[in-house]
Amino acid sequence: MKNLKNPESTFGKLISRQKVCFLGTFGLDGYPHIKAMLAPRKRNGIKEFFLSTNASSQKVKALRKNPKACLYFCDRLFYRGLMLEGTVEILEDQDSKTMLWEKGDDKFYPEGVTDSDYCVLKFVATSARYYHHYQSFDLNPINSPEGDE
Amino acid sequence: MKNLKNPESTFGKLISRQKVCFLGTFGLDGYPHIKAMLAPRKRNGIKEFFLSTNASSQKVKALRKNPKACLYFCDRLFYRGLMLEGTVEILEDQDSKTMLWEKGDDKFYPEGVTDSDYCVLKFVATSARYYHHYQSFDLNPINSPEGDE
Repeated sequence: MKNLKNPESTFGKLISRQKVCFLGTFGLDGYPHIKAMLAPRKRNGIKEFFLSTNASSQKVKALRKNPKACLYFCDRLFYRGLMLEGTVEILEDQDSKTMLWEKGDDKFYPEGVTDSDYCVLKFVATSARYYHHYQSFDLNPINSPEGDE
Repeated sequence: MKNLKNPESTFGKLISRQKVCFLGTFGLDGYPHIKAMLAPRKRNGIKEFFLSTNASSQKVKALRKNPKACLYFCDRLFYRGLMLEGTVEILEDQDSKTMLWEKGDDKFYPEGVTDSDYCVLKFVATSARYYHHYQSFDLNPINSPEGDE
């Protein structure tokens, strides 16, 4: 693949179009695991991603043991895929939980924004691999964006 | 989740509706990896899956080192997901390659069905985890089907 002029922009647009993403983790049973999740509610460029999930879930248990993960975005329409590699931090402080909370979330967390089963996953990407038309392009490292979006 | 009456049938229908699946592997760089792939061209129930791919690809290199993998099918329409855990065997014998070859594949493998970069992944599932409406259901072990489909 030719070099991309502005990979951050290309990747950011691909990410913004997706409603779903896929989180890859090391399962506690010794197998790689994949789980579909709603797309990150907040991100800083293509470096930091914030997702809400259940603290009691299998993937959170696995991430507490091994925080290495990948986040995959699939653009079926254009046969493109983006895999970000990085690590996940599990945020359970109230500020982080409040920051990501949305109206209607009490459907999943009956005790509301302080529900102990509600937590935030902060994924920090270190590298990216982009697939398009059966070719791939690597971006390593991923730098922090100048501003938030 | 209540017990499923016939998980093999429920899972098989979900799989048959997908054009794309996601393969999870242990990346050689020490991170979990995900790659979107065209849905398996052939399968035996929910036990054995056959996919065609490039022998030189990153995921095949990773699978030669560690054959443990997962295959994820995402049914966006109904908010359902299915993760199969198992191992991948890389088939490079001519019979396997001929068995999975389809018209038009020479677009990807210029030397045709004998192209050394063309290989078959045989994924054998040992267990399954099914997600539906924020609940999960485990099937372990996965038995061989009585017949092919």
